Amino acid sequence: MSPSSPIVVIDSGLGGLTVVRAIQNVLPKEDIVYFGDTARLPYGSKTAATVCSFVEQIISYLQSKNPKHVVIACNTATALALQSVQHTFASLPITGVIEPGAKAAVIAAGSKMVPTIAVLATEATVRSKAYERAIHRRRHHARLLMRPAPLLVPIIEEGRTVNDPLVRVALQQYLEPLIRNRMNVLVLGCTHYPVYRELIQEMTGKVVPVIDSAQQCAEDVARRLKIAGMLHGQNGAGSLSSFVTDDPERFQLLAPRFLGMEIDRPTWVHPEELYAPVMPPSPVRLSQSA
Amino acid sequence: MSPSSPIVVIDSGLGGLTVVRAIQNVLPKEDIVYFGDTARLPYGSKTAATVCSFVEQIISYLQSKNPKHVVIACNTATALALQSVQHTFASLPITGVIEPGAKAAVIAAGSKMVPTIAVLATEATVRSKAYERAIHRRRHHARLLMRPAPLLVPIIEEGRTVNDPLVRVALQQYLEPLIRNRMNVLVLGCTHYPVYRELIQEMTGKVVPVIDSAQQCAEDVARRLKIAGMLHGQNGAGSLSSFVTDDPERFQLLAPRFLGMEIDRPTWVHPEELYAPVMPPSPVRLSQSA
Repeated sequence: MSPSSPIVVIDSGLGGLTVVRAIQNVLPKEDIVYFGDTARLPYGSKTAATVCSFVEQIISYLQSKNPKHVVIACNTATALALQSVQHTFASLPITGVIEPGAKAAVIAAGSKMVPTIAVLATEATVRSKAYERAIHRRRHHARLLMRPAPLLVPIIEEGRTVNDPLVRVALQQYLEPLIRNRMNVLVLGCTHYPVYRELIQEMTGKVVPVIDSAQQCAEDVARRLKIAGMLHGQNGAGSLSSFVTDDPERFQLLAPRFLGMEIDRPTWVHPEELYAPVMPPSPVRLSQSA
Repeated sequence: MSPSSPIVVIDSGLGGLTVVRAIQNVLPKEDIVYFGDTARLPYGSKTAATVCSFVEQIISYLQSKNPKHVVIACNTATALALQSVQHTFASLPITGVIEPGAKAAVIAAGSKMVPTIAVLATEATVRSKAYERAIHRRRHHARLLMRPAPLLVPIIEEGRTVNDPLVRVALQQYLEPLIRNRMNVLVLGCTHYPVYRELIQEMTGKVVPVIDSAQQCAEDVARRLKIAGMLHGQNGAGSLSSFVTDDPERFQLLAPRFLGMEIDRPTWVHPEELYAPVMPPSPVRLSQSA
């Protein structure tokens, strides 16, 4: 790897594009390779073993891109797989979205004696206790409210806007116990949720800081690349190329909602190819004819 | 295969258990092997190529059970993959849920000159036009209303009951254009939806027949096995064994909602094992250390 190598950003689907957007703002010269595992999403209802193997396969597949940094831009995948892949791919700098989000939440909680920090996240992220560990490492005396919101990702992936009554009912149901329990800070613990950020901010009464980890994550990556002397020196803007495991057309259509701009048609990687090093092209038919 | 061989039932997750329940009612002596692809669900938002390869892998994997019949108990998988797997596994009797559902809908439409038949289904099932083909083959002059309902599967998988305001808002939104357009018959084109059958029946005004393809599918299987002389002759009740690609515990917990009874702990098949014939146990790490 070298300063001109790309930054690889991995997600289960579209949500990680909010992280790409933040990286492009902070580091406009960097080339970015995005991977959305759309054939196997969502990760948020699945187990650690399953999500770990998915993320390992993707990083393995993308090693041919010679990345200088890998960002796991999905809270669930960070919670369940980051430690494991940091161990498996020890020579590769890999970071996630939870540590930067937890850091920002603790800063936002300020000097309050025992602040109440709420985290809205997928079931798997909540179950993993990754936010508890990351926050309590920084602030021992913080009260945590962890709120799983399993429907928000499918609602956002369906393309529903904040004017939809169903969006309001779902957000009210998920936020109500957090408001009732007087949270001081709210962390959006899933990279999809910033799409409804303004409505969430309005519902929580505008006095509660709402933390979106994408921005924090991008600044963290910039800091690490600078320290390592790995910032890209090119004059023009960096490129963005995308890989998806299902339907490039749908991905291209929905991407601007998360990225704020159009993207080129992604490359379609069939899930079988993620096992490519040891797989013949058509294993099922082979075993059938045997 | 022989009359004592099992019937294999395949689904993306839990919904196909409504089909198992119907088969157990009609054919109580049969042994059933159920496969829920919970690591890669939902299928309803994915493409034909992806869903086809998933279903092929599963049938290939289950051939060791020597099934006498395979039921694709998922409307999306039937719509996208049935023809392809019937071709690939030509010596195996494989049927789906769409033909029986379409047949029942046409019968329920009765003698009306141009009946309006509505189908509530996943995005992928709607896109496939499989219901149009199956209905128009039987009734050329039928008006079809195809309504994608992408949120219903995640809502049901979250365990929400009919008392939940969000369930009512979602069903109202999805059913409203069908009611406004005066449907004569409503087909529940996804094996998850019967969980809300009574509320749907109430919202559609009780005069519209609501077709649930599970029952039709079970009767179709019974008829075929009888003709082939393949009905099981054992005296006691048949067994049910299950395989899932993610979290057996969660599956065991939610199964009674769909099946109406408890199940034994399912066997966990890691998605990697579906490629087993040609795969060493730990491909990603192998390629990493290479």
